[in-house]
Amino acid sequence: MKVAIIGAGNVATHLAKALHNADIEVLSIWSNQVDNAKILAQQVNADAVNTIHEIAKSDSDVIFIAVKDDKVAEIVEQLKSYKGIVLHTAGAIAMDILNTFENHGVFYPLQTFSKAKSLNFSAVPICLEANNLQTLNVLEKLCIALNCKYYSVSSEKRSTLHVAAVFACNFPNYLYQISADILAKDGLDFDIIRPLIAETAQKVQIASPADVQTGPAIRNDQKTMDNHLQLLKTQPEWLAIYKLLSEQIKNSR
Amino acid sequence: MKVAIIGAGNVATHLAKALHNADIEVLSIWSNQVDNAKILAQQVNADAVNTIHEIAKSDSDVIFIAVKDDKVAEIVEQLKSYKGIVLHTAGAIAMDILNTFENHGVFYPLQTFSKAKSLNFSAVPICLEANNLQTLNVLEKLCIALNCKYYSVSSEKRSTLHVAAVFACNFPNYLYQISADILAKDGLDFDIIRPLIAETAQKVQIASPADVQTGPAIRNDQKTMDNHLQLLKTQPEWLAIYKLLSEQIKNSR
Repeated sequence: MKVAIIGAGNVATHLAKALHNADIEVLSIWSNQVDNAKILAQQVNADAVNTIHEIAKSDSDVIFIAVKDDKVAEIVEQLKSYKGIVLHTAGAIAMDILNTFENHGVFYPLQTFSKAKSLNFSAVPICLEANNLQTLNVLEKLCIALNCKYYSVSSEKRSTLHVAAVFACNFPNYLYQISADILAKDGLDFDIIRPLIAETAQKVQIASPADVQTGPAIRNDQKTMDNHLQLLKTQPEWLAIYKLLSEQIKNSR
Repeated sequence: MKVAIIGAGNVATHLAKALHNADIEVLSIWSNQVDNAKILAQQVNADAVNTIHEIAKSDSDVIFIAVKDDKVAEIVEQLKSYKGIVLHTAGAIAMDILNTFENHGVFYPLQTFSKAKSLNFSAVPICLEANNLQTLNVLEKLCIALNCKYYSVSSEKRSTLHVAAVFACNFPNYLYQISADILAKDGLDFDIIRPLIAETAQKVQIASPADVQTGPAIRNDQKTMDNHLQLLKTQPEWLAIYKLLSEQIKNSR
């Protein structure tokens, strides 16, 4: 199987490398960030092409569209003449944006990607959707080649997954950032709290989060919460989060 | 060195086991939950004693008070006659609650403990404080025996650490729970999102959280956020969290 990739951001980069490592030929890469396309193409023995037209005309069996959500529609428009399978990798976009292609689908890796951090791609769950069985089979074969767990997920359920992922990843990461800022304000090193972050995530790999909730709010330890509110009083944004989440945790008891 | 432990909850359990595994003799354990004290005592070859008085009269060099924060003061009262080192393990209580003892200090393991989950105690950072150098040396020796990283942290800075820990652990865990609830409502398995949780925590073991923030809010992807708000509209509590955190992440750009 030969593939082409549109995009050279976080998802495109990890996907291209994983495909290359799985001996799936990445023929060509296009990105509006030309330099990024070149860097990535070099890493996976692909051509960094200058126009989407060249991608559409390539010999690839599959094109992955891995660009910002609001750019997918215009890419679709430019790929019109392409006859192979067209996939997008977005959690928040329904499959039918690709309706103009006879064979199309979604290949959504449910993971947080940063270029700077390497990642064992085989630990990434892939959510698949396709407009026909034959295409779905191709997607499954790709997942098997990548050694990934995969799930068949409709566009509607993928929306649910996407919002759940915000609560599981984007929001916790922002709270880590506040934690680091609280420490930094008092000259304390974030290193001291990193093991706690790791263990908190580790715990729920087996347990249900509700069963391992700890802290003053779940104990309804009002004295400690009052102390914390006092400590946070100069930072209205942190205070607002503290109050809202503590209240909800208390009510979940 | 011989120690005694007051408490048989999450912290006491992990601490007792770690001390026992490090060949530090745990002489006796007391808890108001008699059965828990017995179970723990059996696991670490200690005596489950019936009264705090027996702990005070024991041969131990060090007593750890590892009970709920609001119970520490009454334990202190009952230990009055004890002449060894008295420590508490609480993040949110100042050291001076132990002022009646000639040698006293704080041994605060900055970690989230659940009895049901085993834990490599040597990965737990310990925050130490003592009222004199000689006592601090004993605490350091305990940490070295446990093979733990340790930090000298004043009561004031420990308060800061404690509130930072709420943002790094208790609040993210609650968000995991919401994530699981969102998935369950749509018949989706929490397993599909567990690798994302693990990777999100893994990323910040090296990176700064601010450098690896992802998701619609940091991209200011209003369309996706509007879709998410729509999906959450029947759940006012989740909606409130989504709005507050997304707004702050947007403003942090």
